[in-house]
Amino acid sequence: MELLNALKWRYATKKMNGQAISQDMIDEILEAAWLAPSSSGLQPYGIIVITNFELKEKIKPIANNQSQITDCSHLLIFAAWDNYTKERIHEVFSRTVAERGVPVDSMDDYKNKLTSRYVSFPAEQNFTHAAYQAYISFSLAIAAAAELKIDSTPIGGFDNAALDKLLNLKPKGLRSVVLLPLGYRDSENDWLANLKKVRTPKSRFITELK
Amino acid sequence: MELLNALKWRYATKKMNGQAISQDMIDEILEAAWLAPSSSGLQPYGIIVITNFELKEKIKPIANNQSQITDCSHLLIFAAWDNYTKERIHEVFSRTVAERGVPVDSMDDYKNKLTSRYVSFPAEQNFTHAAYQAYISFSLAIAAAAELKIDSTPIGGFDNAALDKLLNLKPKGLRSVVLLPLGYRDSENDWLANLKKVRTPKSRFITELK
Repeated sequence: MELLNALKWRYATKKMNGQAISQDMIDEILEAAWLAPSSSGLQPYGIIVITNFELKEKIKPIANNQSQITDCSHLLIFAAWDNYTKERIHEVFSRTVAERGVPVDSMDDYKNKLTSRYVSFPAEQNFTHAAYQAYISFSLAIAAAAELKIDSTPIGGFDNAALDKLLNLKPKGLRSVVLLPLGYRDSENDWLANLKKVRTPKSRFITELK
Repeated sequence: MELLNALKWRYATKKMNGQAISQDMIDEILEAAWLAPSSSGLQPYGIIVITNFELKEKIKPIANNQSQITDCSHLLIFAAWDNYTKERIHEVFSRTVAERGVPVDSMDDYKNKLTSRYVSFPAEQNFTHAAYQAYISFSLAIAAAAELKIDSTPIGGFDNAALDKLLNLKPKGLRSVVLLPLGYRDSENDWLANLKKVRTPKSRFITELK
């Protein structure tokens, strides 16, 4: 399986060399992220792709000055809906019935059930749920990149509020979730490049109930 | 890229045929899930693998009576740490320095910084963070299964508290996050099998800042 080899090859790259990734490869990575499954197919998130160097320089201090932010080729920012709303949910279902060519009202029962459930929840709870979905897309982007021998660094720790403000995400109904610089490893200058990948022993990680 | 073909092939299988998956293939899927990256490498989650039919029957009503729970071959349950604690974090670092053969205290600064930050956060916030990591593993299991032409159904909606109680997760410091029945599609009886995969138009899903 290509994925297993890719997962063994990848690591959280700490130093990138600034080399640009071809548009074809970026398109493939974004295609994988776009194809990711999401709860009820709502895809409650989007991806912001940043190549602008000045913008990357502004983001760097927001992400603990990690060098990959500026040394990467493309910086992906996964941003989730700040809430589930009737309008957003209904729009997805309108598109779904149209693209599938099924009767307009054929998904109404499910749509209405889903809408009334989500709108009864607090925005923060809905955001967390949307962020879970964004994580699926983010994970598949990591996997796709690794299959293409492109390095990436998953970055979950950064100043979300500052980034949301810089990118003006609030009026778009989005909140930043996680960052993924994509680029090429600078093996000679990366302290992590040759260290062993360590995982929880499988005997503890996996519990079988037969 | 194998992953892209797999993602186009997969769908949230609504009806499975009960056929068993070989142990080799299950092992490969679990290997991918185990290799998943996680924040600071803590892997704050585990996977429970259920093949016991009586247990699957007990879980079914907890997951909205979805037939895949019993018609799947293997039911994976991703369960995250209910909190980050000093003991749990330190254990990971002890293992990491041992396996890498680096000085025992070489990661102490990072370990202590991380520990003091996490223990200052509420358990619920830490659980959500751990659940995000579990979602990465879950996503890679979906991808691995699809590359092996094994079907799966991502299930985020279920009675978490009831499942935690049934599996006695609390004493293990775990809380259920998401379910993944693995098996083979029953195409003839699955209403979703032949419907078009619908996604947000890419022009809206992706924002490029050049």
